[in-house]
Amino acid sequence: MKPVKVGLFGLGTVGTGVVRIVEGHQEDLQSQVGSPIAISKILVKDRSKARSIHIDSSKLTEDPWEIVRDPEIDVIVEVMGGIGNTKEYILEALERGKHIVTANKDLMALHGQEILAKASEKGCDVFYEASVAGGIPIIRTLIEGFSSDRITKIMGIVNGTTNYILTKMSQEGAAYEDVLKEAQALGYAEADPTSDVEGLDAARKMTILATLGFRAKVALEDVDVKGISSVSQQDIRYAQQLGYEVKLLGIAERQDDCISISVQPTMVKKSHPIAAVSGVFNAVYVYGEAVGETMFYGPGAGEMPTATSVVSDLVAVVKNSKLGVNGRQASLSYKEKRLKTDEQIASRFFLLLHVEDRSGVLAQIAQVFSRHEMSIESVMQPAMPDQNVVELLITTHMASKATLNRALAEFEGLPAIRRIKSVYRLES
Amino acid sequence: MKPVKVGLFGLGTVGTGVVRIVEGHQEDLQSQVGSPIAISKILVKDRSKARSIHIDSSKLTEDPWEIVRDPEIDVIVEVMGGIGNTKEYILEALERGKHIVTANKDLMALHGQEILAKASEKGCDVFYEASVAGGIPIIRTLIEGFSSDRITKIMGIVNGTTNYILTKMSQEGAAYEDVLKEAQALGYAEADPTSDVEGLDAARKMTILATLGFRAKVALEDVDVKGISSVSQQDIRYAQQLGYEVKLLGIAERQDDCISISVQPTMVKKSHPIAAVSGVFNAVYVYGEAVGETMFYGPGAGEMPTATSVVSDLVAVVKNSKLGVNGRQASLSYKEKRLKTDEQIASRFFLLLHVEDRSGVLAQIAQVFSRHEMSIESVMQPAMPDQNVVELLITTHMASKATLNRALAEFEGLPAIRRIKSVYRLES
Repeated sequence: MKPVKVGLFGLGTVGTGVVRIVEGHQEDLQSQVGSPIAISKILVKDRSKARSIHIDSSKLTEDPWEIVRDPEIDVIVEVMGGIGNTKEYILEALERGKHIVTANKDLMALHGQEILAKASEKGCDVFYEASVAGGIPIIRTLIEGFSSDRITKIMGIVNGTTNYILTKMSQEGAAYEDVLKEAQALGYAEADPTSDVEGLDAARKMTILATLGFRAKVALEDVDVKGISSVSQQDIRYAQQLGYEVKLLGIAERQDDCISISVQPTMVKKSHPIAAVSGVFNAVYVYGEAVGETMFYGPGAGEMPTATSVVSDLVAVVKNSKLGVNGRQASLSYKEKRLKTDEQIASRFFLLLHVEDRSGVLAQIAQVFSRHEMSIESVMQPAMPDQNVVELLITTHMASKATLNRALAEFEGLPAIRRIKSVYRLES
Repeated sequence: MKPVKVGLFGLGTVGTGVVRIVEGHQEDLQSQVGSPIAISKILVKDRSKARSIHIDSSKLTEDPWEIVRDPEIDVIVEVMGGIGNTKEYILEALERGKHIVTANKDLMALHGQEILAKASEKGCDVFYEASVAGGIPIIRTLIEGFSSDRITKIMGIVNGTTNYILTKMSQEGAAYEDVLKEAQALGYAEADPTSDVEGLDAARKMTILATLGFRAKVALEDVDVKGISSVSQQDIRYAQQLGYEVKLLGIAERQDDCISISVQPTMVKKSHPIAAVSGVFNAVYVYGEAVGETMFYGPGAGEMPTATSVVSDLVAVVKNSKLGVNGRQASLSYKEKRLKTDEQIASRFFLLLHVEDRSGVLAQIAQVFSRHEMSIESVMQPAMPDQNVVELLITTHMASKATLNRALAEFEGLPAIRRIKSVYRLES
């Protein structure tokens, strides 16, 4: 039986996992797809580097074009990450009729539509299950599992690094900076953590999820992004007192075919299933008009979980090839997107204000809310940081983001309000 | 464009939901599959019955063969439930080249292999996502999402009725009989609740999940079943004191290609994600060698969630038909199963014993455990039901089921042990 020949781009953590699964589960894989799967060439940065697994060195190459132009190779598995020239290699590989499996969220979030269009033109598969939420098969679920439903909300904890940091801050009372250092020491956070802690990584993943869930042409710039570097230990304590956990949530919503997408630290009611997702785990909560509430939970990263998704995609590519139906997923039809305005984006909010400690201040604040038709749900006055200032914790009922911003602008101008300390979205 | 013609068997809760989705989402569905989907005939018990949705009465029939033999019909969607003559209709429909979408767990658990063999022979699709865990796309996940992995454990809360009852007992301190009556009044439990409360419904679903997850020919008789009718309020209180929730868990395990499957009330550590699944919700926890821990959560029943799974299957059938690749899922290869013996089935256990209140009794018990090489993790003596008897709560370390049974048999013969009140499996 002629083996299916795979060219692997990248032999880091995930690439090593892919080799392990393809070799270790060869018999199971073969019984599913009907022929052996062979990794015939591997692109590496340095052929001479020592590796944790044994690889025949004749398979290693430092030249990507050697793989792209090899007519024997059927599928390219790309697990290098980053953009660089990767788009160019992939477009050329598709041009030559090779199928693609990738774990590259940056590539798919930024250039997904161009790549899928080329794949469709060439009748090739492009699968990218591992690009979002590592081992959780959420992309398949959105494309196939809920094909009959109309999804109206997707909420995701899709970045393990920030969830680890927030979990540690919540459970151990540690400060952001200290936990970040610990996460870096453990290898959960990069030396330059910007992409994770500022929410950019999560934004890329939410772009992919919203595109699939809403079947709309969502772009990375459509995501309103805020990271966790401003989350304080105090915010977390107050959230807990009110029955919430602080999570970096990606939230994509659709109403009457208008959509909004954001990534921001959010206070999530403890009774919500996503509030319990802790440590480096990921979860994606999906609300469909017909199905109602569902949630998918699992490891968001790591060698073997991510490699599982990659190799499951590889199995799907090989099955499609045998059936002669490649290029089917790429031809999903997408709607033009319409973005919600700030007037249409609504949620409940939490505000922490520092105000002067004198009578009449709460009345002033209440008047501002009232003028903007925002309704207060609760007010608490827990502590006095210094003698002249008190803290006010306010939760509101549903209001638009535009309304909130107008109220906040007015607070900025009130002398009695010394500081708007924190503002969070609330999810119940 | 020629519409795809569907014959619907059953117009109860789920059938009504299927009609609603196919009509309400017609435009979305058509854009996915490229042609209209029409429900052209519906099998009902009584054509003259009043319905909650408007149906053209000329579509209704009381004769199943009218649908099975209609050459115009491409797909049969079976949502009647129960067995009756359904297998006969389905085999005949497959013989005539019709594809099948079914929500029927009884049918698939008892006759799945025969039906799938016929489908494979005829090149027809048989999809049954709705047969397990309603709106959760767990069957797709096991077949495709984890195709590259080796699944070693599946744990499921796959019966909403019993989870509702146990949740109420746990949260409100109510007695089993009272909550059962309430569940019956709310329509969550049948007038004859046997199939739910005795674990038979869950056993059928676990048969289906284990077959797919382990790719082995599992039969319903392989499942060791115990229901929840013996779960007392006291058991739940003691579980909570020890940090556990009592759940009716289906547990399928595989080790060295030997498998075991059971459904039983289990004490699950509160930190386990499945312990938080409450009310009528379902969840399936899957452990794969490579992916590690994952969990899939959602509504286990109900008109619209179940109908979502049915119509998503229908979309898959129509797509396969357009591509000419029907019958692909049916041809999964399955291994012969080997069942674990009681010596190989291991877990931790909880025991509640009523023993005489005199010195030396605990030593006797400890000797029995020691003789059978079972190791005690903790002993508690919380209360005295009457003057001469004390309660002992014992948790053990890992032991085989056979070892436990030998120890229990010896306890039966000890005069100091008045009663073995409860025995539970523990999951952490």
